[in-house]
Amino acid sequence: MSDKRYSLGVDFGTNSVRAVIVDVGDGQVVGAAVHAYKRGDAGILTDPDNPHVARQHPADYTAGLEASVPGAIAVAAGTDGFAPANIIGVGIDTTGSTPLPVDETGTPLAFQPEFAGNLNALAWLWKDHSGVAEAEHITELASQYHPEYLGRCGGTYSSEWFFAKVWHCLNVAPEVFDAAYSWVECCDYIPALLTGTLRPEAIKRSVCAAGHKAMYCEEWCGLPDAEFLARLDPKIGALRKRLYERAYSSDIAAGSLTEQWAEKLGLPSGIPVAVGAFDAHHGAVGAGVGEGTLVKVIGTSSCDMTVASKESGSAEIPGVCGVVDGSIVPGYYGIEVGQSAVGDIFNWWVTEICGGRGELHEVLTAEAAQLKPGESGLLALDWNNGNRTILVDARLTGLLIGQTLHTTPAEVYRALIEATAFGGLTILNRLEEYGVPVHRVINCGGIAEKNAMLMQIYADATGRRMELSRAEETCALGAAIFGAVVAGEAAGGYSTTEQAQAATTGTKDTYYEPNPENEQVYAQLYELYKRLHDSFGLPGHSDCLYDVMKELLRIKQDAASG
Amino acid sequence: MSDKRYSLGVDFGTNSVRAVIVDVGDGQVVGAAVHAYKRGDAGILTDPDNPHVARQHPADYTAGLEASVPGAIAVAAGTDGFAPANIIGVGIDTTGSTPLPVDETGTPLAFQPEFAGNLNALAWLWKDHSGVAEAEHITELASQYHPEYLGRCGGTYSSEWFFAKVWHCLNVAPEVFDAAYSWVECCDYIPALLTGTLRPEAIKRSVCAAGHKAMYCEEWCGLPDAEFLARLDPKIGALRKRLYERAYSSDIAAGSLTEQWAEKLGLPSGIPVAVGAFDAHHGAVGAGVGEGTLVKVIGTSSCDMTVASKESGSAEIPGVCGVVDGSIVPGYYGIEVGQSAVGDIFNWWVTEICGGRGELHEVLTAEAAQLKPGESGLLALDWNNGNRTILVDARLTGLLIGQTLHTTPAEVYRALIEATAFGGLTILNRLEEYGVPVHRVINCGGIAEKNAMLMQIYADATGRRMELSRAEETCALGAAIFGAVVAGEAAGGYSTTEQAQAATTGTKDTYYEPNPENEQVYAQLYELYKRLHDSFGLPGHSDCLYDVMKELLRIKQDAASG
Repeated sequence: MSDKRYSLGVDFGTNSVRAVIVDVGDGQVVGAAVHAYKRGDAGILTDPDNPHVARQHPADYTAGLEASVPGAIAVAAGTDGFAPANIIGVGIDTTGSTPLPVDETGTPLAFQPEFAGNLNALAWLWKDHSGVAEAEHITELASQYHPEYLGRCGGTYSSEWFFAKVWHCLNVAPEVFDAAYSWVECCDYIPALLTGTLRPEAIKRSVCAAGHKAMYCEEWCGLPDAEFLARLDPKIGALRKRLYERAYSSDIAAGSLTEQWAEKLGLPSGIPVAVGAFDAHHGAVGAGVGEGTLVKVIGTSSCDMTVASKESGSAEIPGVCGVVDGSIVPGYYGIEVGQSAVGDIFNWWVTEICGGRGELHEVLTAEAAQLKPGESGLLALDWNNGNRTILVDARLTGLLIGQTLHTTPAEVYRALIEATAFGGLTILNRLEEYGVPVHRVINCGGIAEKNAMLMQIYADATGRRMELSRAEETCALGAAIFGAVVAGEAAGGYSTTEQAQAATTGTKDTYYEPNPENEQVYAQLYELYKRLHDSFGLPGHSDCLYDVMKELLRIKQDAASG
Repeated sequence: MSDKRYSLGVDFGTNSVRAVIVDVGDGQVVGAAVHAYKRGDAGILTDPDNPHVARQHPADYTAGLEASVPGAIAVAAGTDGFAPANIIGVGIDTTGSTPLPVDETGTPLAFQPEFAGNLNALAWLWKDHSGVAEAEHITELASQYHPEYLGRCGGTYSSEWFFAKVWHCLNVAPEVFDAAYSWVECCDYIPALLTGTLRPEAIKRSVCAAGHKAMYCEEWCGLPDAEFLARLDPKIGALRKRLYERAYSSDIAAGSLTEQWAEKLGLPSGIPVAVGAFDAHHGAVGAGVGEGTLVKVIGTSSCDMTVASKESGSAEIPGVCGVVDGSIVPGYYGIEVGQSAVGDIFNWWVTEICGGRGELHEVLTAEAAQLKPGESGLLALDWNNGNRTILVDARLTGLLIGQTLHTTPAEVYRALIEATAFGGLTILNRLEEYGVPVHRVINCGGIAEKNAMLMQIYADATGRRMELSRAEETCALGAAIFGAVVAGEAAGGYSTTEQAQAATTGTKDTYYEPNPENEQVYAQLYELYKRLHDSFGLPGHSDCLYDVMKELLRIKQDAASG
């Protein structure tokens, strides 16, 4: 047997499952396979009468495991020194908050014949927004009785989160709620399934899911207290004792792989399976997050992650949606921030407004790259989908200012990119104000890989080097990292997450350094952005905005003559 | 000889000359002909090195007269009762301010061989903006020494106006300036040419041109005094005595048609030719302007005209660009207001942004017409080309607020139309605040004729019925009205402009009545528009704009559910 050791990471996304086998020594992926969900529309089951509904069937998860893991092993089989017996641990990440109603054995109600075809008995996918009214009530009640419950999740409870979904189920499908013994996050369900610990009392729940989505905090004894939950509904209060008292970070094993699953998947039985977490959080670990390093995943929206030591970092940062002890790197506060729309705004402009297809992105990018900062005289707010961090307000909308009769689609396109850069800078500034420095920014995601102009604008606008993650599939790599950590040093893995990251993560050779001239122009534009941001985003803030258009014209003139 | 009497109106536009022969009894056009200018680009001579330059050759004007007038007579010849001998008077309107340098005989320098091919010796077309710096200096000097000079033209002297052009000529082409004995507006040149009164001292100058573009005011003894003009340049000061002391309204005859021109054009010699005026002002007369009635010419920009009796109206209305005694209807203050861009904004959206051609206007109009007021959640400012009335500020730019990831081109199109409606309402409100009531609005121009949705939005947003002028060529009709007035009652014409208007002008059967439900929504949107208008348009104005996006979302929700 070779002395190489491998870890398996399994990443359950919105539309597919990806399994990767990673060389524990250097992070190299030796085998990977993807399984697309078969049910519904790319795995998502919807309700034609309610656009907010988005569900998944847990049978897609098990089918995904059974296809992707053996698939990855088959690919890895061609690698020198690889053997399934050398896989020392398993890590899991999933979307979230994606809770499933389960019975006393931990079996999803979705598998019970009486609930076949019942959307409410399925997994409630992260992007299900049917619980808007419930989320608003939770925010109101918590503000009134336990403001500390919201302190670490930005002051507003979201319809995407655990209790909004569970309560909405009680309101619209009481027969499902009553039949459920407990509710389990998808990221807890998979490790429990693999380790034979499905009984709700036995499941080691993820602190990432608990802390970011269910107002869990060790300091106040776990989940919100039963009295508070009973204010939502007495039945929710009664549910609390069938949920959990404690939650765990992913350096803890959820259990050992059962023989049955080892056989199904072609893995050694008995190897440890790490406590699960959300995809973005494991992705940050796979991209090399650490103290002073922010990982920015740029897609349709942005999800930015960093960690802060408990000594220097503040646990409560106004407008920051999630600060959870151990949710990213165990032993640190995990901080999750982000922008409600990034790529979605560019897509809206290209597809909906300019009536173009994908290739128009490249055309507009090429044209916009010819512009100097400030040259268009335009400025935008990146709020077409609201503002997540730092305003935590979904009821905000877009703004474009400075257009003339000659403004071109490419100028607006660049202004929208700049707006997302300024939105990102606003987040960085807020973190630093509260003792969370950001010295490095590591970017992931298709847009970061593909759009050099965007990366350069981000560097120029923030005054920080923009680096790119070396790994492409950072979520699965992060999961594999935790597989190696729960395996431990003795088995050829690692004792700490930081050690595992140091060996397996890295950045690409290409990076983007700020251009001092551009920085200077963006500093002026950002000042105007911030004034619009505060004027339209903060209650009670008043400002004389008369000079905003004049300043944009001055900066435009300077850019043209400079 | 029939007892029908006719009047000839000749309208010199930017690209062509139009002659119409009008039945003095009922305003019916019995003959019309158009001659397109031959020189340059549709009559406009430009400088490849300076986009602000726009000139015209006076030979195009004479060629236009010689083609269009006989052409109109030839068409009219088919009408029962018509004979050239029954034409009793001539009226003229032109673009402006369009001044020409002339010699002591009143002959344009453009006709002198030494200035052949010299752009600066041509007519300086209204849209020539080369005198921007000079206009700014004039504003500064007038603000300092004679603020009353600017009081009636809105507080800011424009680069489109007489003295900015003349001064700029002195600065860039002193040889032309020095060779010019005087400068004559195009609307003064044509009547003088036709009546043999070309000698600068003999020309009866138009009070419309003098008052709106050259700071002329009878109350302070005509043009700005020589001392003030010498502050621009001593040579401008010296020019004053070669300009004019008095200016006249168009109910006064400039003189009688010379035999030579009567023969060339096929008209009776000796008939009176009215003092000229600008096209928009005569257009207002032809559309039926009067006390309490605003005429709105909606094209690429809007030009709105009304009159006020000298007893009730105020001569100085802040932000109103022109209040001139007798410039529209003799005996009344003529008030000229307008929006810097209307159709131009819609064209920008359709052509530049959405990449569509003309027909996309109709597609977007049809789609936008399906929307209820407020339904899009959007609000725009109509400032893509600055704001003429009531802010008098070219350095303002566009603003769009409320966009989401689902905002459509048609929604923005409608929001831009609504923005121009709100801009128009802001003007109406300003007039009424200063004692100039607006009970009727009569619309002219292609957009008014073609876009019923726009007309309905204007009615709903302003709470006023929108009527359409019956005449299509209101400028030429207005000119013909003044031909009938200078002919006088004894010759079969009229003693007053009002009498002539009563007989010859009217509105169409189609009109647009405000819909009370829509009015109520637009009242809410206008309140938000006005707050953005004041926040971005007025120095020193500060407001908490936090609720603007929220209010738009509320109105959107109400529209969707209502």
